[in-house]
Amino acid sequence: MVFPKNIFNSHPKEDGDFFLGIQHILGFKPKKLKIYKKAFLHRSANKRDNEGNPMNYERLEFLGDAMLGTIISHYLYKQVPGGDEGYLTKMRSKIVSREHLNELGKDLNLIQFVESRIPKSHFGDNIHGNVFEALVGAIYLDRGYKYCEKFIQSRVIEPYVDIEQLEGKVISYKSLVIEWCQKQKKSFNFDVYEDTGKDLLKHFAVKLSIEEHVIAKARATSKKKAEERASKRAYFALQNKIDKA
Amino acid sequence: MVFPKNIFNSHPKEDGDFFLGIQHILGFKPKKLKIYKKAFLHRSANKRDNEGNPMNYERLEFLGDAMLGTIISHYLYKQVPGGDEGYLTKMRSKIVSREHLNELGKDLNLIQFVESRIPKSHFGDNIHGNVFEALVGAIYLDRGYKYCEKFIQSRVIEPYVDIEQLEGKVISYKSLVIEWCQKQKKSFNFDVYEDTGKDLLKHFAVKLSIEEHVIAKARATSKKKAEERASKRAYFALQNKIDKA
Repeated sequence: MVFPKNIFNSHPKEDGDFFLGIQHILGFKPKKLKIYKKAFLHRSANKRDNEGNPMNYERLEFLGDAMLGTIISHYLYKQVPGGDEGYLTKMRSKIVSREHLNELGKDLNLIQFVESRIPKSHFGDNIHGNVFEALVGAIYLDRGYKYCEKFIQSRVIEPYVDIEQLEGKVISYKSLVIEWCQKQKKSFNFDVYEDTGKDLLKHFAVKLSIEEHVIAKARATSKKKAEERASKRAYFALQNKIDKA
Repeated sequence: MVFPKNIFNSHPKEDGDFFLGIQHILGFKPKKLKIYKKAFLHRSANKRDNEGNPMNYERLEFLGDAMLGTIISHYLYKQVPGGDEGYLTKMRSKIVSREHLNELGKDLNLIQFVESRIPKSHFGDNIHGNVFEALVGAIYLDRGYKYCEKFIQSRVIEPYVDIEQLEGKVISYKSLVIEWCQKQKKSFNFDVYEDTGKDLLKHFAVKLSIEEHVIAKARATSKKKAEERASKRAYFALQNKIDKA
């Protein structure tokens, strides 16, 4: 007699890890774990639902892409009261660009959850952005519009969206900070070190000091990004001083 | 001494009419009437807000276009579990096509509320769809996502969206009904009459009788549309019989 290995196809230990991993990324508890599993299911896995419909993340990606566009549209609408339709459209397409979404998905290391028959190293860059969109679709189905908005606010808008930078008015916060220090004859130092911690992807941390005082810290998947992020924080901390300089 | 005609630029009588007109279209009470006024403000009116920003419906149109896309995406996701991303994208673009949105705006006679310096007869067809999108944006800002969804469900999906027809599987319900009657050797009659009522646009009403019994009624802005709508209703009422025939 053969006992089925996994009755109901359930893997309590794996599900627990997946739950915690997803919760960590979302910043809140997922309710229907099954929806999130679908968000990471590549078509090569050839899964089907009970009705025989192909099951993979592409339908959720369709939904998430639309949600993301709407939430960013609303954000821009509120944020830039003087921007006309053309401006808003241009800014939105910069924020939800393929390149940007790939970066977001990569920084959240979403590929760790992807289920596929193709080795992960064979995927191109787009898988990161596609899975990110699918995750947004899954959040919407699981927790509704408000949670979706919350997630996009904390994971897309706060860390990544800088309207001045998108407008091209500010090319680099690092150069603004350096310029200010030189003008003010103040010493500065970017202390960069590897800080991968529990992440699967390599991460870097930066401490930015001015006159030997640490005034901003940041962490990202590249040295350049971490420096830019720390500089941005420093810039806003110093803004009054810089504007008057 | 000259008394200002309209202190605070308020027009209690006109506002009351506008409120009732909008409420009739929405199917629920608007809260912030000001937002809806903006949804009908053409750029030619050259209005500005207190901060000096140009004020017209174009920004709301940007927002409403995104909302509409998302709500239709979610509807299709639920409605067609077997449709892949390509199918869903194609169906969505049929539903939110320029032509379709213009038709929606026209049927709701939204142009009656438009404030512009250009005579309304000078506008092309797109104003109907543009103002419809702006209205969706206004609903979202005034009452949130759920009300927006409700409005699109009752004003777009229920009366207009028929997946079989969009897929091209059903070209015309009228021809299906006629075919069935002929096969079953039953007499039928489309009784069409003008029924404009309180609407500003011309409207037509249709009574579809089979064997002298009225089995469906409908009303629309053209004879053809009214006949098709009545036929669709009749088709669903008769569906079992037709499928078995």
